[in-house]
Amino acid sequence: MSSSAATPWKQLLFSSIQANSHLKNSSYFQLATVTSNGRPSNRTVVFRGFQDESEKILINTDTRSRKIDDLKHCSFAEICWYFTDSWEQFRISGPVDVIDGTNPDPLKLQQREKSWFACSLKSRLQYMAPAPRLPSLSEQHTKTPSLDPSIGPVPAFCLLLLDPDQVDYLNLKSNERLIFTSGLSVDGDKFWTSDKVNP
Amino acid sequence: MSSSAATPWKQLLFSSIQANSHLKNSSYFQLATVTSNGRPSNRTVVFRGFQDESEKILINTDTRSRKIDDLKHCSFAEICWYFTDSWEQFRISGPVDVIDGTNPDPLKLQQREKSWFACSLKSRLQYMAPAPRLPSLSEQHTKTPSLDPSIGPVPAFCLLLLDPDQVDYLNLKSNERLIFTSGLSVDGDKFWTSDKVNP
Repeated sequence: MSSSAATPWKQLLFSSIQANSHLKNSSYFQLATVTSNGRPSNRTVVFRGFQDESEKILINTDTRSRKIDDLKHCSFAEICWYFTDSWEQFRISGPVDVIDGTNPDPLKLQQREKSWFACSLKSRLQYMAPAPRLPSLSEQHTKTPSLDPSIGPVPAFCLLLLDPDQVDYLNLKSNERLIFTSGLSVDGDKFWTSDKVNP
Repeated sequence: MSSSAATPWKQLLFSSIQANSHLKNSSYFQLATVTSNGRPSNRTVVFRGFQDESEKILINTDTRSRKIDDLKHCSFAEICWYFTDSWEQFRISGPVDVIDGTNPDPLKLQQREKSWFACSLKSRLQYMAPAPRLPSLSEQHTKTPSLDPSIGPVPAFCLLLLDPDQVDYLNLKSNERLIFTSGLSVDGDKFWTSDKVNP
């Protein structure tokens, strides 16, 4: 086992993102949560980067989607990110902070606003669409809502912030697997250890 | 809501498999389970087809992998299968039957054997490798075990059989979403209903 104060898996992930950046879908990954009845749930979401220089992963979602209910019941999630060109898999797990417009923390609301304006106008319009999973009325498809580009996040816009506590890296080309686990030092600082394990 | 006795989502899935078959990774999907401590778990696995003419999905795995512990704790799983070329997502959930060499049902053991022989020799050799997730000893990599092609499944070979009870289909090109839900008729026959919902 080796120990390091930095975030050793982050450089590995950046390399994979770089190596697969020619593929449109390389920023898509699958996010697993647990429903209120204890069953697993899984869907594709888009990687929106890290929060500033931290290791926290940004994901945009709709407050009306079921994953919000899931995360209220169990705040943990696991990302499975498979890079099709380099044959690498990252499984990233940790607690998720759900930041909607009612969040009492001004810094979090600021981050939510930043994420909103980082979205394309087309992406922002999705949050003004009829509620996901409700019966579809075909008439709804004809009218496209208009949106002032200077207007801040609408109520349905929700930011998820996943704070990794374990990263399981698998390289199917080299057949290598590394498990990164976070810990807290006596000073309360987060640190990472890594273990080379059998694939 | 429309009702049908057949398996309406299966044809949709076959079309997607066909449309994406030029991509090596189109048979890979992410399987979410729940760990014994109630957290979500997520990894990439390979679609091994349906059991005969049924709608049950075949997945091969190692009895020593953590998903086996997960499924003993909670027998439900959710597949998230994203087709990168056609922009379609299938979320397929249901209970999973774990079939290892100790299974008392001769028909299930027969299916496990069939799945074993359907694997390439290279795939079969993986089940003779050191236990997944245990510390990796570099010396282990030098020796390749040999395997008689006529020999049946080794103890580590395990077949998973996912019996779908819900399929959530999303088409990001047409922006359409269909949810297929199974039910049981008064005669005890399984049937499917489908609902067109907002994406």
